[in-house]
Amino acid sequence: MTAPLHEAHPSSPGRRLPDTQQGMRRRNLARVMHTVSAEGPLSRAAVASRIGLTRAAVSTLVDELIRTGLLEELGPERPGRVGRPGSALTVSGRGPAGIGAEIGVDHLAVCAVDLRGAVRARAVRHGTNRGRPPQPVLGELTALVGQVVAEAEREGLWPAGLAVAVPGLVARDARTVVRAPNLDWHDLDLGPLIPARLPLTVDNEANFGSLAELWLGEATPRDFLHVSAEIGIGGAVVVDGRLLRGTHGFAGELGHVPVRPDGPECACGGRGCLEQYAGEEAVLRAAGLPPGQDRVGLLAERAAQGDTEVREALGEAGTALGIALTGAVNLLDPQAVVVGGALAALAPWLLPSLERELARRTAGRGCAVAVSRLGPEGPLLGAAHSVVRAVLDDPAAVAERV
Amino acid sequence: MTAPLHEAHPSSPGRRLPDTQQGMRRRNLARVMHTVSAEGPLSRAAVASRIGLTRAAVSTLVDELIRTGLLEELGPERPGRVGRPGSALTVSGRGPAGIGAEIGVDHLAVCAVDLRGAVRARAVRHGTNRGRPPQPVLGELTALVGQVVAEAEREGLWPAGLAVAVPGLVARDARTVVRAPNLDWHDLDLGPLIPARLPLTVDNEANFGSLAELWLGEATPRDFLHVSAEIGIGGAVVVDGRLLRGTHGFAGELGHVPVRPDGPECACGGRGCLEQYAGEEAVLRAAGLPPGQDRVGLLAERAAQGDTEVREALGEAGTALGIALTGAVNLLDPQAVVVGGALAALAPWLLPSLERELARRTAGRGCAVAVSRLGPEGPLLGAAHSVVRAVLDDPAAVAERV
Repeated sequence: MTAPLHEAHPSSPGRRLPDTQQGMRRRNLARVMHTVSAEGPLSRAAVASRIGLTRAAVSTLVDELIRTGLLEELGPERPGRVGRPGSALTVSGRGPAGIGAEIGVDHLAVCAVDLRGAVRARAVRHGTNRGRPPQPVLGELTALVGQVVAEAEREGLWPAGLAVAVPGLVARDARTVVRAPNLDWHDLDLGPLIPARLPLTVDNEANFGSLAELWLGEATPRDFLHVSAEIGIGGAVVVDGRLLRGTHGFAGELGHVPVRPDGPECACGGRGCLEQYAGEEAVLRAAGLPPGQDRVGLLAERAAQGDTEVREALGEAGTALGIALTGAVNLLDPQAVVVGGALAALAPWLLPSLERELARRTAGRGCAVAVSRLGPEGPLLGAAHSVVRAVLDDPAAVAERV
Repeated sequence: MTAPLHEAHPSSPGRRLPDTQQGMRRRNLARVMHTVSAEGPLSRAAVASRIGLTRAAVSTLVDELIRTGLLEELGPERPGRVGRPGSALTVSGRGPAGIGAEIGVDHLAVCAVDLRGAVRARAVRHGTNRGRPPQPVLGELTALVGQVVAEAEREGLWPAGLAVAVPGLVARDARTVVRAPNLDWHDLDLGPLIPARLPLTVDNEANFGSLAELWLGEATPRDFLHVSAEIGIGGAVVVDGRLLRGTHGFAGELGHVPVRPDGPECACGGRGCLEQYAGEEAVLRAAGLPPGQDRVGLLAERAAQGDTEVREALGEAGTALGIALTGAVNLLDPQAVVVGGALAALAPWLLPSLERELARRTAGRGCAVAVSRLGPEGPLLGAAHSVVRAVLDDPAAVAERV
């Protein structure tokens, strides 16, 4: 179950399944699930016409999906409605759920999302994790997962998998946090430390955040660059609706793109990285504000009140983001840059200088810059939805576990 | 014929062909061609076992490919050889040929490559094209194409398509040169200006150069960043064996990644772009050398002789490349950086500072840096081979034209 969670190809569910008769059945189950998920409620006939199979074939597939609790029948449609005979189908609100978890520098969060995309349970613990050893942090996270799973089960759901977002580099197709500098964690396999008895995936928070934008954002294009911030600066690259992972799983590391090569030293060993200008600590320092809880809220409040020092600091951060994004836009030519995470709340004061810099350095071409609607919720929702997408992408795998 | 030429997916020939019985036949024809091309000479039985079809099915496909001149039989294999009964198959050396053309700032070149990958005809015209209007340049190019096609036809080949490499931005899936600053061409549709009566594709020289590395390079990985130089700096990004094109077709523009954001003004409107430090003019200026013909040869000669000024200029260019590549490696996490074009000849003096900078700024992780074996031949070969690959990817389309 690990691999499918990592991928994002909404337009072609299950396309990597094997090219056999059994593989075709699995692909068709996925097509039915995706169709009902995207357009339901739908009658069997409507599903059949949308995916180009006979009604009889669709009925067999639907029966299997109902039996395994992935689809539900809403009962006969009200009379007088034309063209949709029979009972309407909808994805189940009582079947499998995706459990998402987020290890933030200042909080832990867990949620359960059903196949319909609704958040059905949620738990949060505030308090810094910076410099704490991994065991107690992951012990607390496991306890929160237990709470959320219990709550979801009371609602008739069962957990199909757990996806954990971490603020650091995660090895591709593995559960190892290679480097999370703001937690001071290194080369740490989370598998044994999260005994949740669920299929587990671990990924970078910006990666999950970008998937959330792709799946849940309003009119998010299929080619975009995601830039977000909590304590560090996160980035992710989506190309043709798929997350670009890179050789080691480290693609999207925007925070250490050199902005001013002779600038201040960075913990990464470089100099003048973006994080030295647009990271939270750098902005607070430039704004003359002390570190502490809810620093982003404080910055936004002061900026809204017209605090000149804060506005200037955010303007400078926007300029640095614009310089780093110029390089990224030149390399990737995306349809848009989507600004998310904590940066979304600061967008009114970051964007003017960011967009000015980007336009000036790209012969006026620039690149559309959009602000995430999900803001800091992105990584947690993306994690939970990655489990849900894996169920939609291969419902047969779930059926085997029921 | 335009679209397939643009793509590069050697491992999955024809996978985008329609999912019908006719589509399956076309995909299987492509599988046979790719198998014989990669591993031939092969018997029909050997082809059948490699692609998992029955020998009878393969024979039908092979007969069609022989009839249309794409495959040839070498005659019965010599007796005593075990396991490969029957006549060995090879791709034809007398069938379709790919015509590649390159519009350089200082030269025009055209070549014909047969299905076996051999260059069978070639024509070059030296002399600057800088600032010349497009019509006479493209008139000369068309004449060279005519020469090469005539020579190829004398060898029993026929031209399957023409692919033209240009030093500038080319609109995605079109033949329009949007901006070629070193030629001073803008928004120019090459279609009507190259009346070669062949299916025509136009692409950026660095894109074709990267495809040449992918197809012809020694052990080129499937994820790499290509950086090359002629007059400007070119770049291209290959992800999972496919060229990343970007929304407008402009992806890979490494030359205008900001290196020192307050540095010298660039023609692009930005400041301190990579081209201002590692472009040919900048390096010649820093080395105290005048512009002129074969400048790269001069730089390499002087550097080899131990000229301190030239070595320092190349060292500085390497540093600038290292800074720009740090950003790119952080964003893309490629398996390797492949240095090509004119840069390949200068690699001994560029690479030490380039690699030092990259390692220092990526916490020692760095990224493997390889030097292209193809050097300045890459774009021309990549263009010609893109036509050949399109034939291998969909031989049925060629058969329809015979």
